Amino acid sequence: MINITFPDGNVRQYEPGVSSMDIAKSISEGLAKKILVAEVNGQVLDLSRPITADSSIKLITWDDEVGKNTFWHSSAHLMAEAVEALFPGVKFWVGPALDNGFYYDMDLGDRQMSEEDLAALEQKMGELAKQNNIYIREEISKKDAVSLFFNRNDEYKLDLLHNLEDGNITLYKQGQFTDLCRGPHIPSTGHIKAIKLTNIAGAYWKGDEKNKMLTRVYGVTFPNAKLLEEHLTMLEEAKKRDHRKLGKELSIYTMNDDIGPGLILWMPNGTIIIEELEKLAKETEEAAGYKRVVTLHIAKENLYITSGHLPYYADSMYPAMELDGTKYYLKAMNCPHHHKIFDAEPHSYKDMPLRLAEYGTCYRYEQSGELFGLMRVRCLHMNDAHIYCSKEQFAEEFKAVNAMYLKYFQIFGIEKYVMRLSLHDPEKLGQKYVNEPELWLETEDLVRKVLIETGVPFVEVKGEGAFYGPKIDVQIWSAIGREFTLATNQVDFAQPRSFGLSYTNQNNEQEIPLIIHRAPLGTHERFIGFLLEHYAGKLPMWLAPVQAKILPISDKFMDYCVDIKNQMRARGIRVEIDDRSEKIGKKIRDTELLKVPYMLVVGEKEMAEHGVSLRMQGKGDQGLIAVDSLISGMVDMIQNRR
Amino acid sequence: MINITFPDGNVRQYEPGVSSMDIAKSISEGLAKKILVAEVNGQVLDLSRPITADSSIKLITWDDEVGKNTFWHSSAHLMAEAVEALFPGVKFWVGPALDNGFYYDMDLGDRQMSEEDLAALEQKMGELAKQNNIYIREEISKKDAVSLFFNRNDEYKLDLLHNLEDGNITLYKQGQFTDLCRGPHIPSTGHIKAIKLTNIAGAYWKGDEKNKMLTRVYGVTFPNAKLLEEHLTMLEEAKKRDHRKLGKELSIYTMNDDIGPGLILWMPNGTIIIEELEKLAKETEEAAGYKRVVTLHIAKENLYITSGHLPYYADSMYPAMELDGTKYYLKAMNCPHHHKIFDAEPHSYKDMPLRLAEYGTCYRYEQSGELFGLMRVRCLHMNDAHIYCSKEQFAEEFKAVNAMYLKYFQIFGIEKYVMRLSLHDPEKLGQKYVNEPELWLETEDLVRKVLIETGVPFVEVKGEGAFYGPKIDVQIWSAIGREFTLATNQVDFAQPRSFGLSYTNQNNEQEIPLIIHRAPLGTHERFIGFLLEHYAGKLPMWLAPVQAKILPISDKFMDYCVDIKNQMRARGIRVEIDDRSEKIGKKIRDTELLKVPYMLVVGEKEMAEHGVSLRMQGKGDQGLIAVDSLISGMVDMIQNRR
Repeated sequence: MINITFPDGNVRQYEPGVSSMDIAKSISEGLAKKILVAEVNGQVLDLSRPITADSSIKLITWDDEVGKNTFWHSSAHLMAEAVEALFPGVKFWVGPALDNGFYYDMDLGDRQMSEEDLAALEQKMGELAKQNNIYIREEISKKDAVSLFFNRNDEYKLDLLHNLEDGNITLYKQGQFTDLCRGPHIPSTGHIKAIKLTNIAGAYWKGDEKNKMLTRVYGVTFPNAKLLEEHLTMLEEAKKRDHRKLGKELSIYTMNDDIGPGLILWMPNGTIIIEELEKLAKETEEAAGYKRVVTLHIAKENLYITSGHLPYYADSMYPAMELDGTKYYLKAMNCPHHHKIFDAEPHSYKDMPLRLAEYGTCYRYEQSGELFGLMRVRCLHMNDAHIYCSKEQFAEEFKAVNAMYLKYFQIFGIEKYVMRLSLHDPEKLGQKYVNEPELWLETEDLVRKVLIETGVPFVEVKGEGAFYGPKIDVQIWSAIGREFTLATNQVDFAQPRSFGLSYTNQNNEQEIPLIIHRAPLGTHERFIGFLLEHYAGKLPMWLAPVQAKILPISDKFMDYCVDIKNQMRARGIRVEIDDRSEKIGKKIRDTELLKVPYMLVVGEKEMAEHGVSLRMQGKGDQGLIAVDSLISGMVDMIQNRR
Repeated sequence: MINITFPDGNVRQYEPGVSSMDIAKSISEGLAKKILVAEVNGQVLDLSRPITADSSIKLITWDDEVGKNTFWHSSAHLMAEAVEALFPGVKFWVGPALDNGFYYDMDLGDRQMSEEDLAALEQKMGELAKQNNIYIREEISKKDAVSLFFNRNDEYKLDLLHNLEDGNITLYKQGQFTDLCRGPHIPSTGHIKAIKLTNIAGAYWKGDEKNKMLTRVYGVTFPNAKLLEEHLTMLEEAKKRDHRKLGKELSIYTMNDDIGPGLILWMPNGTIIIEELEKLAKETEEAAGYKRVVTLHIAKENLYITSGHLPYYADSMYPAMELDGTKYYLKAMNCPHHHKIFDAEPHSYKDMPLRLAEYGTCYRYEQSGELFGLMRVRCLHMNDAHIYCSKEQFAEEFKAVNAMYLKYFQIFGIEKYVMRLSLHDPEKLGQKYVNEPELWLETEDLVRKVLIETGVPFVEVKGEGAFYGPKIDVQIWSAIGREFTLATNQVDFAQPRSFGLSYTNQNNEQEIPLIIHRAPLGTHERFIGFLLEHYAGKLPMWLAPVQAKILPISDKFMDYCVDIKNQMRARGIRVEIDDRSEKIGKKIRDTELLKVPYMLVVGEKEMAEHGVSLRMQGKGDQGLIAVDSLISGMVDMIQNRR
């Protein structure tokens, strides 16, 4: 008998050669129907693979990221089978899973595939799924594999085989389809109940424009129809809420060919949002004992060699400027600049923790094809700070950073979030990770404890830590359920050493501080992009560029309107008057389109009663309200960011 | 008889050939004693030169910038005479006037001049001045001049002669000294009553380090001893108030070799000053109807070609970064970026004037030898804004900008200031100046009228306008009488054309706006440098990084102190506790050194009476004050920037 250990620590005994599916069945039939794949001793495997020795096991369903990933990769094979049925002789390149679905690249020869073909393909996939064909794994020698694909005249798979080692090559078959594939796969096609092919695009073979253009078909599948429906609704809603569309309609930002791709110009409305976010960050950080600094956007080569950016990330930096025999670079990160401020004066333990904060502007080179609205840009305004602390202070500081995230989530109504704790891989110490095995374990443990103590939902991912310490990627979901990576928190025990940072401890010795890198509000670019989608452009009162618009029914109420405007402005409210000679209906419609939270309609009755008729964005008429209580209500909403 | 017109418009008649000195004498003997030089038909000339036709005249005294300049240039000749007496055979290069004094570069052969020699030179100059020798002008042919200096074996003056045209060459002689010189000069050496030689330095001939090192002697002279004494006191005070010294002592800013020369890192204390200044600017600009924008620090080459920066100012820009086949540059000015925001949406006359404001960060390449603390840097945070307006709106907008300057001068206690109105030179239209003669006259006249109407002190300077319109340089004097150039206001009728900017006017036609470039608070770098000198580091309450420090006499009052601190922080006061176990005397001395405005001493009596003993920076003990009234008094001072 062998011992199988479950994630909760439970151990059960099974016959050697038992499969993950057998194990699932031994627990419950319900579970066996749901699981898609299993993680055995840290390796994701087909459910049918035999387990021959003591092992740890994690049974994976659709709810797990790895489960979805496998489901979609198997769906790519299903799609390929359908394509082969409808386009005989097609040749396939690769078909990976994506964050939300999958694609397969294919060579259709002289044939073209059009949007109309997608419906037929979907139908064919449905038929094949209903056959509930099993994904069969087959190990094959390189020689046999080469001969197989040579006989098929398949130059693509031969190209893939070229880079594979004998002994590590597998085929997967389902129904009539066979593919060269590393796996793993879900047990059978019957799990795939809902199918949507979303898009056809051209893609150069290996991404190289000198190569042949292949056809790429995108799709997404689900284990039931309801999930697909929700997904399609979300996509439709996301289209309406597209931050690029809203950014233009609401005059938030613009770009210009003469300035350059990925470089955002913030218009007055966008600047108001930026300033409100910075005000929030400054208030929050001041209350948490941060000090602010201002650093520049360039530095000599040497700084970024010390920081490790040039040796490791030169590709994502702008090229150098040569001046007075020195190379200067645009900064890709604020940290080295903050370290130099830390280092400008000697510090004692009494100064620690020292928290240096700045909405710093960084420049990163992204391929122009990767640029996307505010989401992928080349200049980032980052809600950055670096906390220099002793090892003893670390847990409390890290806890406070977490608390700051939660505070922000509450303010912005972010209900779904998860923290991905990325750890080191002990096998790659000294290569991918600073060779400080004890410090890694120690800080990882500190971080893990804080996450558990504060009850924040988190997952652990081995082998995704930063070079210089464990990191946490914060993922949030918008109101319509789209996922965004907001920010990273990093623990750093390498840079303090390379920059020679130190402070005098209680025993009058020099000690090296730990550093926490943190940016809870991420970058203005990405966060404002997120907020536009999250709120569908209907920003809450405190963030809205125009908080109220006064709509006089006719010109004769203008003096009264100006009086209200002045009263409101004196209390810091961003208010405008629609002084156009338009009908009130048109004024209301236009103001709705600009997503102004409050519309204040003023006519005879309103003036007589020292009030306005309040219309709330999307909620219609709220009736007459006295100017005084309107203003104090708004001030309260704004000050408390409601 | 010829007509001589005076600046006030008065006309008097004189015999042809009359000299400016004769004219002065005809007005009053007192005036004749005071005048140094005269401006005849716009040209500055010796007082002895005959006037042969109708002319306008301005008699110039020490009080005029041109008067001081001539006085100092003549003093350089006087020094040269003294040097020749003490170092026979010395050869001279050039000896210009400076903003505050003069220097002369000389070749002493094998001899060295030391600081000790300066006293002897001063004494010799005094003797020669007392001889009251006349500065005699002599026109000379190039041939004779060459022969003169050839015989003297004077390769320096021969080098100067090489570039002079025959017919334009003059010598000036006083006492035993003859120099090749364009003039003009003051009438005689007797005007020079107080002399101070300040410094000896080495200077390469023609500034080229491959050439011989000459000796440069600096000096300053005055028409009476009292002025010299005031000047020396000012210099001594300026040394104590040196912003580089205070910047370090008060932890305002730092620089770092790994980042680069001229690139300022703002430490937490400096950042507080920056944020207070930006808050002031934002409040003031918001009240004046400005809208804020945020732009980046780089753009493609093409933007700066359109703006004219690359064709005209490439030398003062950082070099290009080559990316994706395009050249990117760090921005040297914010204007082209603001123009692109203006141009991102169509505008109608209803949007005008549109005022776009930003504390924008610009990068300029200054020679490393020119860099000086915060005063000459390579990165500037500029209080920038661009006002897009119609010609009809221009005067009012320009007046409002002026009013903003005056408001700031009052807040910062700047009592002495002058605006230099720089005009075009009609002869250089199309070369140095945009060829729009009517627009020049029109806008110059508009600006002049506004300056006269608002009663701001101003001077006019022909031929110093910007390429694209008239400009105003704002000069201010610190509390100790040192002059600073704060900012420039510019009228621009060229860039709106080159950027193709327009708006729809009332007649539904496209019209080109005028632009006002303005930056009343200049740059953070220069303005904070100025403020440190102006206030001798004792910043007013609202600007002080730490506004109050609580000094407990012993630890047993700590709880009470923390309670006061919390009350003050809740009202937004920047307060700290000196919790060191030091004697109260030392705590007070140390806090004085940090120039904290209020020191709050807390002992038995203070705690019993719910108060503190207030010590004001530089003013000593103010007695016991209740905590409540202390706080409300401070809040009032801070909010009203008193």
